[in-house]
Amino acid sequence: MSSPTYNRIAVVGVGLIGGSVALAARERGLADAVVGLSRSDASADKLQRLGVVDAVFTDWTAGLEGVELTIVATPVGVTAATVLRALEASPDTLVTDAASTKADIVAAVSGGGSAVEQFVGAHPLAGDHRTGAENARADLFEGALTVVTPTDATSDEAKQAIESLWTALGSRVVAMSPEEHDQRLARTSHLPHVVASALAAATPADDLPLAATGWADTTRVAAGSPELWRDILMANALATRAAIGSLQTELAAIDDALSAGDAAKVEEFLARGKRRRDALGG
Amino acid sequence: MSSPTYNRIAVVGVGLIGGSVALAARERGLADAVVGLSRSDASADKLQRLGVVDAVFTDWTAGLEGVELTIVATPVGVTAATVLRALEASPDTLVTDAASTKADIVAAVSGGGSAVEQFVGAHPLAGDHRTGAENARADLFEGALTVVTPTDATSDEAKQAIESLWTALGSRVVAMSPEEHDQRLARTSHLPHVVASALAAATPADDLPLAATGWADTTRVAAGSPELWRDILMANALATRAAIGSLQTELAAIDDALSAGDAAKVEEFLARGKRRRDALGG
Repeated sequence: MSSPTYNRIAVVGVGLIGGSVALAARERGLADAVVGLSRSDASADKLQRLGVVDAVFTDWTAGLEGVELTIVATPVGVTAATVLRALEASPDTLVTDAASTKADIVAAVSGGGSAVEQFVGAHPLAGDHRTGAENARADLFEGALTVVTPTDATSDEAKQAIESLWTALGSRVVAMSPEEHDQRLARTSHLPHVVASALAAATPADDLPLAATGWADTTRVAAGSPELWRDILMANALATRAAIGSLQTELAAIDDALSAGDAAKVEEFLARGKRRRDALGG
Repeated sequence: MSSPTYNRIAVVGVGLIGGSVALAARERGLADAVVGLSRSDASADKLQRLGVVDAVFTDWTAGLEGVELTIVATPVGVTAATVLRALEASPDTLVTDAASTKADIVAAVSGGGSAVEQFVGAHPLAGDHRTGAENARADLFEGALTVVTPTDATSDEAKQAIESLWTALGSRVVAMSPEEHDQRLARTSHLPHVVASALAAATPADDLPLAATGWADTTRVAAGSPELWRDILMANALATRAAIGSLQTELAAIDDALSAGDAAKVEEFLARGKRRRDALGG
């Protein structure tokens, strides 16, 4: 067995994603030790009990001592501040994150000064409707895609190390600018959430007994955390609004076709949606 | 064991729904014989091989001889014509259907004359992404809701018999007018299909590698048959357009909130969607 890449890795925010990073890193032997940083004694106790990390700290100075790589897996709204805090506590560490938006976080971290060369934003497109460290699993990233968003300021060493990390955790890795990430994720992730919420909100409660699998599937993601998704949508408001606009154009087109009684246009609209859906599979 | 309710039941259109009706009726001993009517020799051969019905006919006069109850489970676009054909071939039979729209079918059958008193429209809210008689199963309707849509013209005997049928097949039954059915299903079924198709169509093909479970769930029903759904949406165009309008109002509200940078409004929108979604479960 080859020797570990790192002596010591830290995970800040040990929930579903952070816990799965820790489990995967340990299972794949990426480090001699994977430590977790926790906000409170209560959550530290829980993490200790679950055993997803080798050790848990609530004190940042102690927790980050000797750490070469830190993964910040906190909610979007506090990710940039947490990355800056990690860089301040341990100036030589490499840092990556796992948040759903990138441009705002990368910009906020860059605003923090020269430390940005050691930070590479990342977004593993993996998750589960169950949250929390108790649902973490070592294979969460297997077969998933992780987008990494280095910038001109990023050092080659950091870029290579963070790409290798997400590959070693089991995912495929693709690099793009933070802005491209946010525009594309607005269409593939943030718009679906908006649409699911709008559809759920537009349905009178009295009609729910008449909802079958179609409604259940199409609204499923609306069950996600309003606080978490508020922060994602606010952080990526411009691109999300552009995506909402594209959807509104499609809705206007099918409404026009129905208004005109144009069966061929209705079918063409449905066939176009089916082709795109079938291209994904699943 | 009690004696069967019917000597002979016929199913016209033995696909997923019709095949499941046949299997459930046989398993629950509703009739001495359940026969299937098929369009072509080829599909009759397939049905014979699958064994979901006791006998298969392509000739309507022979197939409906001695039949007391006929279930029409053809696609929406041909359901009314098929109901009328069944009533013409066998004037004393009770008839129900299983189509996704009701007002257009009930009106078209009523237009056929006095025979309407024996027909009760029905819509079992059950299905599967797999279609065809080969995927039929006796428990498809268990725990599902079936909407029946009797009218003032419907005889009490027909109303009771058709409600008992769908109950005996395993579903819960609720009665409402064809128009109420169509308005409510526009919101719980037809709008979700429109939204899923619009979202899929609005997504550039290049972005599909960045689609994760949220996109996959929200667009899932867009994989359905464009021909089948064209007929459903055209048959229920007015109510579907009203439902599209409600969704557009919700989308405009979240777009406004994002444009104004109003985090509280964004969260309130998401919380409202979550409450409705959580009320369904699943």
